[in-house]
Parts: sequence; C-alpha cells; structure tokens
Amino acid sequence: MSVVKITFPDGNVAEYPKETSIMEIAEKIGPRLAMAALAAKVNGKLVDMSSKISGDSQLQIITGRDKEGLEVIRHSSAHLLAQALTRMYPDIKLTIGPVVEEGFYYDIDSEKTFSTNDFAAIEAEMEKIVKEDLPVYREELSKRDALKLFATNDYKVEMIEAMDDATEKISMYKQGEFFDLCRGPHVPRTSKLKAVKLMKVAGAYWRADSNNKQLQRIYGTAFIEKKDLDAYLKLLEEAEKRDHRKLTQDLNLVYFHEYSPGAPFFLFNGTIIYNELLNFIRSEYQKRGYKEVITPQMYNKKLWETSGHWEHYRSDMFVLDIEGQEFSLKPMNCPSHCLIYNRDVKSYKDLPIRIADFCSLHRNEFSGTLTGMVRVRKFSQDDAHIFCRFDQIEDEVFGVLEFIKYVWNEVFNFKLKYYLSTKPEKSLGTKELWDQAEGILASALKKADIPYEVKPGDGAFYGPKIDIDIEDALGRKWQCPTCQLDFNLPQRFETMYVDNDGKKQYAVMIHRAILGSLERFFGIMTEHFAGKFPLWLSPVQVKLLPIADRHTAYCKDLQAEMHRHGIRVEVDERTESTPKKVRDAQLLQIPLMITIGDKEMENHTLAVRTLDGKVKFGVSKEAFIQKMVSNIRSKSLTFDMD
Amino acid sequence: MSVVKITFPDGNVAEYPKETSIMEIAEKIGPRLAMAALAAKVNGKLVDMSSKISGDSQLQIITGRDKEGLEVIRHSSAHLLAQALTRMYPDIKLTIGPVVEEGFYYDIDSEKTFSTNDFAAIEAEMEKIVKEDLPVYREELSKRDALKLFATNDYKVEMIEAMDDATEKISMYKQGEFFDLCRGPHVPRTSKLKAVKLMKVAGAYWRADSNNKQLQRIYGTAFIEKKDLDAYLKLLEEAEKRDHRKLTQDLNLVYFHEYSPGAPFFLFNGTIIYNELLNFIRSEYQKRGYKEVITPQMYNKKLWETSGHWEHYRSDMFVLDIEGQEFSLKPMNCPSHCLIYNRDVKSYKDLPIRIADFCSLHRNEFSGTLTGMVRVRKFSQDDAHIFCRFDQIEDEVFGVLEFIKYVWNEVFNFKLKYYLSTKPEKSLGTKELWDQAEGILASALKKADIPYEVKPGDGAFYGPKIDIDIEDALGRKWQCPTCQLDFNLPQRFETMYVDNDGKKQYAVMIHRAILGSLERFFGIMTEHFAGKFPLWLSPVQVKLLPIADRHTAYCKDLQAEMHRHGIRVEVDERTESTPKKVRDAQLLQIPLMITIGDKEMENHTLAVRTLDGKVKFGVSKEAFIQKMVSNIRSKSLTFDMD
Repeated sequence: MSVVKITFPDGNVAEYPKETSIMEIAEKIGPRLAMAALAAKVNGKLVDMSSKISGDSQLQIITGRDKEGLEVIRHSSAHLLAQALTRMYPDIKLTIGPVVEEGFYYDIDSEKTFSTNDFAAIEAEMEKIVKEDLPVYREELSKRDALKLFATNDYKVEMIEAMDDATEKISMYKQGEFFDLCRGPHVPRTSKLKAVKLMKVAGAYWRADSNNKQLQRIYGTAFIEKKDLDAYLKLLEEAEKRDHRKLTQDLNLVYFHEYSPGAPFFLFNGTIIYNELLNFIRSEYQKRGYKEVITPQMYNKKLWETSGHWEHYRSDMFVLDIEGQEFSLKPMNCPSHCLIYNRDVKSYKDLPIRIADFCSLHRNEFSGTLTGMVRVRKFSQDDAHIFCRFDQIEDEVFGVLEFIKYVWNEVFNFKLKYYLSTKPEKSLGTKELWDQAEGILASALKKADIPYEVKPGDGAFYGPKIDIDIEDALGRKWQCPTCQLDFNLPQRFETMYVDNDGKKQYAVMIHRAILGSLERFFGIMTEHFAGKFPLWLSPVQVKLLPIADRHTAYCKDLQAEMHRHGIRVEVDERTESTPKKVRDAQLLQIPLMITIGDKEMENHTLAVRTLDGKVKFGVSKEAFIQKMVSNIRSKSLTFDMD
Repeated sequence: MSVVKITFPDGNVAEYPKETSIMEIAEKIGPRLAMAALAAKVNGKLVDMSSKISGDSQLQIITGRDKEGLEVIRHSSAHLLAQALTRMYPDIKLTIGPVVEEGFYYDIDSEKTFSTNDFAAIEAEMEKIVKEDLPVYREELSKRDALKLFATNDYKVEMIEAMDDATEKISMYKQGEFFDLCRGPHVPRTSKLKAVKLMKVAGAYWRADSNNKQLQRIYGTAFIEKKDLDAYLKLLEEAEKRDHRKLTQDLNLVYFHEYSPGAPFFLFNGTIIYNELLNFIRSEYQKRGYKEVITPQMYNKKLWETSGHWEHYRSDMFVLDIEGQEFSLKPMNCPSHCLIYNRDVKSYKDLPIRIADFCSLHRNEFSGTLTGMVRVRKFSQDDAHIFCRFDQIEDEVFGVLEFIKYVWNEVFNFKLKYYLSTKPEKSLGTKELWDQAEGILASALKKADIPYEVKPGDGAFYGPKIDIDIEDALGRKWQCPTCQLDFNLPQRFETMYVDNDGKKQYAVMIHRAILGSLERFFGIMTEHFAGKFPLWLSPVQVKLLPIADRHTAYCKDLQAEMHRHGIRVEVDERTESTPKKVRDAQLLQIPLMITIGDKEMENHTLAVRTLDGKVKFGVSKEAFIQKMVSNIRSKSLTFDMD
C-alpha cells in the first residue's frame, strides 16, 4: 500500500495511506479536532473534509478559528436555506447562493413573494434540517448527467451549459433529499450550522442584468457559534441606533435635499460642530507649523493634464465648458498646491513647507452609490501637502504620525492599526529609491513607537505610504487618515528647490490628511459617539431650565455670563414641566442640564444633571463655569462632575 | 421788435429781444457770469453760448460749477487736441473725439505712431492755442457742402453720408484755422481750457470693428481749474501705489494663475486676513443672533426654475451635465436658504430666523472683464437671509443698518451714504404693500439716525431696498453692503409660517450682506489702507529683530510668550544688519518691529518701532504685550505707543 507524506502547519510530518480522507486524518489526530473541523486546505486549496489525499501534501484543517471556516459555514448556510425553501415551496427555482461580506444570500425565482414575515417558518425548517444532522456529500458529474439532473431548472441549465467539463469538474453537493450544483467546500454535516439567521429580502436580477427576470434575494448571516451571532446582531442593533443618517437628522445637524445629491447641508447645529472641528485642526496647524491657503474650485484641464488626472481620473471629475475651454471642479488639492509652491524659487532653507487647505472638493460619484455623509459628491478634507527635502522625510512623517495619533487616539478615542505599504510591481523610481524611502517610513514608525504590519506591494505607484485603519466604538474599521510619499507630482510640476550647492533638486511631496474628509469624519464620529458628543463639540453645551417663570430672568443673566466664557448655552423658556424640559434636552443629547429654582437663585448654586442621569445639587456657579471652560479647552471626552 | 420771455432757474423772468444770443444775456446779467459761462441749457437742451433765443424759454447758464460744464470743457479739449495734432501733423485724419468717464479721447488715423514721448510737444501746441484765445463758432451746413468740405477725410465722409440732413442739421465747429464736424456745444473761446492733460495712447478700431483699420486713440483729461486737475493726478498716483493687484502680490497675500481665471489663491498671509475677516463677522453674528449654515455648491436646475434664476440668470451661471440632468454652481445663496427654511414647519414664534452662509459662489463673468479681486468668478459673501414677519421688518432692518454702520464706519473707517430705493414701474405686489414697506425702511433709517436720499423707482422688482455707497480713503465710491426686502422668493418657495391664529402666512425675506463679496472687500480694503492693515488684521503683527546672534534665543522665548497671547510674531534670524531687517519688515508693512539687544535682554524691556517711523526705547515687556492684546481685541485702527 503506498503512503503519502502529510506536512502540517506546525511543520510536523506524518505518513498516511494514500486516499485516506481528511476526516480520517483529523480523527487520528484527535476527536476534538475532528469535531471542530469544517473543511481543510490541501496545498493551499480549500476542500471538504471528505476529500481524500492522493499525494504528498501540505494540510491544514480548517475550524471555526480560521477565517476560511466562517466562509464555509456561510456557504453551507446558503444550502441550508435552499433546502428548507425547497421543502416548503417545491415550485421555487434556485439560482445562486454565494457568501458575501456579512453573510450569504440565495436568489430564487418564485411565484410567492417572500417577506420577513416568512422568516420564522423558514428558520424553523432550517433548524429541523440542522437537527437531522445530515451528512454533506460532494459528487462529481459529467456535463450530460448534470444537465439531466437539473433539467427542470433553466437557471442551473444555463450555468451548466456555460461550463467547460473538459477543464473543470462539475460538482454538486447533497444533504438528505437536497442537492445543488456547487464548487464547495461545505461543512461535513448540517449539525455544524449552529448559528444561522435570515436578515432581509431584496430584489435582484438574474446575472445582475435588468433585462432579465427579477428574482428574490433572501439574505442571511451565519457564525460558528451562537454567541458570535448574538454579538453581531447586537452590534447591528447598536449600529442602527447610531446610524448617522438618522442621528444627524434627529439632532438637526445635517439635511439632504434631492436638488443637491451627495452634498450635505450643515444646519445651524451641524455647522457649529463642523467649525469646531475646523478650528481644532487649525489650532493644531498653528502649533505644528502648517500654513493655510484658500484655493479656487475650477481649473483649466491643462492643470489636470500636467498632474495626470485628466488621463486617469477624468470620469470622476465634474467637467464644465467655459468659453470653449474644458475646466473641472477639483477632486483633490495637490495640483493647486504645486502651483502655489511654484509661485517663487525655493531654497533648501525654505523647506519644509506645509500647505494646508480646507476648500471644497467635488467628485463625480454615481448617484446610486451616494450614502449619507460617508459617500458624497461634495466634501472638504483637512488636507495638507508637505514639500520637503529627502533628508527631512523622516521628521515630517514622524510629525504626521504623532499628529494622527494625538487626534484620533487621544482626542477622539478611536483605536488605530498601522500598515506600511511598499513598492508595487508597476511603480515610478528605482528599487534603491523605494528601499530607502520605505526604510525611512519604517524608521519614523519606530521612532513614534508605533507597531505596524507590512503590506507588500500595496504602495501607490508614485511612492510608499502608511495606511491606517481606525476602529470605532463598535469595533468597525474605517480608513480616514493618510500619509503618502509622492515622487511623481514634483516631477510633473517641477516643484524644485535650490540646494546648498546651488543645484536644483526635486522636492519630495507628502500627501497627508488627519481626519480625512470632514463630511465622512462627521458621519463616523456621530456613530462613534452615538450622537453624545463631548462637551467641546456639542452644539448646545448647557441647557438652563427655569423651574418657574420667575426663574427665567435669572437664567438669562446666567446665560449671558456663560456666553462671556464662550459657552454655548440656551434657556428653555417654555411653560413646560421640568421633567418634560429635561426629556427634550436629553433627546437632543445636550450634555449638561442645569435646573434653576428658588433655592438656586438664593444661594447662587446650580442643580446640574448630566446626560447619564446623574444629578448634583448645590454646585457652586463660579466653580462649575470654570470646570466647563477647562473641560472644553482640554477637549475632554467625558465630563466628570466630581 | 418782438420779445421773448426768459425764465431762469431761480424762477425769475426777464424779457429780451428775440434772437438775442445767450452770451449777450449773460453779459446783461453780469460780467462775472459771462466770464464763467461755458455753455447753456435752453429748455433742457445743451447749447453754445453763441446760440440765439428764438422763443419763450427756460434758460440755465452752465459754468464750471455744473456737471455739464465739465463735459463741455472735455469735449472742447478733444477739439483742442485735434487742432494741435492737425497743426503738427497735417497728414493725419481725424475720426471721432468723444467725452468719456474720466476725460476724453480722439481717434486718429496716422502714419506716425504716437507715444507718450510725443505728449510734451503736443501739449505745448495745445497750450499755444489756448493762449491764442480763439473764439469757437458753430456753423450749420447742407449735406452737400459738408461732403465737399471734408472730402479728403473718408471717415468724416462716411459719417456725413450716414446722416439724414432732412431731420438733423449737420453742424461743425470752427476755432481759428481748425474746423471739425460736431454736434457741440463747445466753450465760447479756447482760453476757457485751463487744465488739460494727455494721459495715454491705445489702439482702437474704426467703429470698434476689428475688421476695420486700426486707429490710434489718444486719451486726455481736463478739468475746469488747474487745481482740480492736480488733485485728480495726485489721486491717480496714490491709487496706482495702492492698486490691490500690485499690493496683494508684493505683500504675498494673493496669487492668480491662468489655469483658474477670476479665482484668487489666498496665500499664507492672505488666508490669515481672510480668516480674520470671517471670524470678525462670525463673532458679530453670535452677538446679533445670526446662525451659520454650510450649503452645497451645485444644484439641479429645478431649484433655479423655482427661484426664477434659470429664466433670468442662466447665462451668468456655470452649468454642468450630471447623469443627463442640468445642474449649476450657485451664484447666490438665497434659494438654498429657502430650502433650509422649509425643512420643517415654522411658527410665528420661531421668527425671525437669520441664516448666514460663507460658502463659495460662482458667476460666469466673461474672462475679458475679470479685474483683480474686484471682479472675479469665485467669491464668498458674508451673506445672510432674514426670514421674518411683516411686523418684524423694522427691527430687522434697523439691526442690519446698525451692523453695517458699525463694521464699515467704526471698524474700517469708511464713509457711508444711504439711499432708499423705491417701487420701480414693473414690480411685484400692490402699491399699498410697497408704500407700507418703504415707510418701514424710512422709519428704520430714521430710528438709526441715518440721513438718506430717496432714489425713486430704483428698488428691485421684488421689493424696496436700502442702497449704500461707501467711500474709501481716496474718496472713491463703491457699493458693497446691501439690505433688500423680498416679497417674491417667499412666494416662489412657499416659505411660510403659522401665525397665532393658526393661518399660514408668507414670511418676508431680507437679503443682506455687510462686507459683501469678501474677495472684493479684500481688494477695496487693501487699497483703503494702502496695505498698512490695522494690527488685528496684519498677517504678521510683530517682527522681533535680534541685533546680534546672541539675542536670538531670547527673541525665540519672547516669540513663544507672545504666541501664547495669540499674537502673530516672527523672528528675523538672518545675519543681516538691523537697518536692513527694519527695511525688509517695513516693505512687508509689518506694524510693529521690536529690536532686542543687550540692554533689552538685561532690563526685560523692548525697543519698539512703528511703521510710521516712531521708535520708543525701554518699553515694559508685560505692559506692551497687554497693549497689543487689547489693541487687537478692540480692532483698533491705529496703534498708539503712548
């Protein structure tokens, strides 16, 4: 009997008889592994546990701990849904059922119109199939047999006919009475599917072509364990509560109108937050040696021809005809900053020059893709371009990293994850230049004491960069800040400086943004804080609640006093009950509510209530104003009354 | 002998023999009037002093005190120039020589190319003709005689042929050997031309048609008295020195690039001033109950159809095609503010609402008309729209007037002149509504203690307005702030409120701007201050000048200390002499220069130099910082060291 040599991920090697199934190997290793096994990777290729080993191989058993495990679970869950549907509605026709980012779906052609009301019954049937613990088998078929087997389903027939059975095997999977055309792999038994949930129904066209028949798409999600599903559902619920599209409306921050798709109107309170963000970044710029410019919005196409955008980015720009010449609205600031740099001759002593710009940018996003504030057509960035000498890159990048960490981490309490993205295959400049530049970025990261991963080949063609994932309060990841080296634009625009030998040299350009798009940041931050902004950002920081009309005048005086300290404060003068006034202030997420009655007027004290429901009586007015001023100045994330 | 009855402007009536010349009448009235007389108005029509009165008439003798007098002087100056040229260059052909805003010109066809180098000789010849004191005669000719007389000048022939001698008299004027086709009137004698000066030469096409021959246009100006000419030349010289197109370049404030015509780039120092202006207006908004919004730049044409701009203003907008729909960049904010107003239902208690907006506006100005910062394609306004009830108009307009007076008069030291512009013939709304609204504006002006003139019929079709002329340091007039009532847009957009009877009513809209276009204001203000901005606006407020290298570290500490007080301060670390450092700071119009040497370090004092050359030694550091802070905070126009 011939043997095969199996190499495991830990480097161990073992011999097994040829054609041993992977499940048998797993069982040999231990019953717990066999129990946990969902699929396997043989020489890097994902296969079923029932697959047999036919030669010397690298073998990895996939369990719920592996990323691929979740994919297999979700793929098998789509089959589970399809089996339940077929049992309940034998007339439906199955089409395709792939895994997607947050779960899976199955598209079906059915006379019956499905709704979420049907989900309980379908989930009950799915639960039954799981309990039946059906083994899942793979079978391979000839094209002819496949066509015969799926003859009554024209969608499957169309798919089979498109397959080339000379080069690919036509495989199907069976569990109990159910079978489906599928490449696999799948879990070994239906009992592995312990945490599946249907999510929603949507319309979809066969092959995504609106000329074809409209199908019904049933979305579901699945996890390895029930607790993961529960956590996901809780996250979804929390995310929905925090959805910035709803919150910014409820809090009167932002408004959208059909006449200007993808361009938020910042209302009174939204503008206060927006301007606070701007002023915050501006004040940091002052400390960090950035200087601000204000630049035009429209440029002759000659600018974009010089920068290369006309060739590569034109369809993303809004283009206008002016007196027979093509202009476009700027989608980014870099080329205009090159024009400013080139206004006069620069010496090596003039560098670094850090040009900051908050002007509006426009990108021609397709109307169907616009999403709240996170995908817009009009936005501003806290954008800056640093022009420096090669020997200044490290200090500059260090400064940027430190800036990003301060803002995102300290001020806004997001988590950060850093990546160094290196030379891609198609790139500008020599290998030596790239090696050197990547080394400098790595050394800046090290100097800033920042752990990072390398993303080989993920740099832009014009230079290496540091990519940063930020993670919000719900653990969701976003890309906002950037720090990229650019060896390309300085050549295209000839942004040079005269070095200390009198020779002209190209400046290095660093593209960097801290918050990134302010509109997008606004949306992300709103969800991160669930609309409960820290005091310094709150549009109304304090609401004064006179208990009776006779306390209103005193509240007005108090308001004037707080105004003088730069505090945004309103008086609720309505003749409503105090609990109603408190409730309304809470709905608007106003961080501090101060009730004023006879006692407070007499003693010049305050009764202060925070948004978390804590109340403190007899607070000294002067001390409290000072506390607010210092909390606002320090951009504190919390307000501690004690 | 028959007599005619002459009525004078003061109402007096006198009788004269028919066909008495006006000069004779003037002489009868008095030799001084006859001496001063330049021309006359008979029944409102301007005529020569030699004209004879043929019937009962209203008569006004025109002297240098009348606006028309200057026109006659300038017209006769054009003839004076033509006569001198004809004497000096008999081969030239005269074409036309009209009066223009700041003087006159004469277009000539000549082999010789004229330049300003020829002016001295030509002016000498003109002076000679003035001294000859030639009488100026009018003659009337038949078309045939005119054609004969001007036969050698094809331009004049062309003009004569175009005349219809049945309806208009062909007149010419003679002085000495010179004669020219002309409608007149002219001064009675060449000695009246006491203050004439040639200004420049330019090219011009016959009949302004570039298919025709190019002529040479010699520009001149003329005044009644020499002292007026001198004042004008001095003003020109001063205006040229202050030209914002030069000053904003020299001071590194603003930059223009051919890729973005009509859209200024605000450089580092320009952006500081721009943001200071914004912050100033913002802080006033806070005090005055305005609230800021940030709005989109592009709107579907449906918005402009609703507002009426699509019909009346389309060619002034930049239009784009987006996914098959027409959009345009907004040229003004009003319609977008109506959308914001309409976001929810308003009660009478919610009004007034004052919506302020600094977002960019774009107007499609023809490239040939773009002028520095005063005529641009991209700009922002300190624009706001007040939505109020009819009974709130007076208070709101009063508030706007008070705001305008404060900003323009007190903060920037311009002079103001007010006009109330009333119902034009074509207008929206009843006579009663207009009468009432005009009465309210008048009463707001009175309440604000503002004298004004009425401009009858000068209101917009949609409502009466208050027009304001501002006068800069050179006495030049500009229109910047506005305050207009609008009964139209509230109807087009149905911006309503629910009154205290529960009925829906249209809100009144007040369009108002204080500075107006910030770009234009920037230009005007730069010229007004001749680049010597008050301390609070100066991009660099203080320059610290270490006398030797050993004083630099101390200057750096001083800089840090001043920074902490929000003062914009730079250290001139160059190894240049102190006088050179002072000169360079003066060139950049830096208001305060502080020299630091051994003595200053020892005693913690400052040697302070102001831009006017005053120097004060031994100034206490702390006291001076406090003085600066308070000067900046109060937006003082001057810095008084004592």
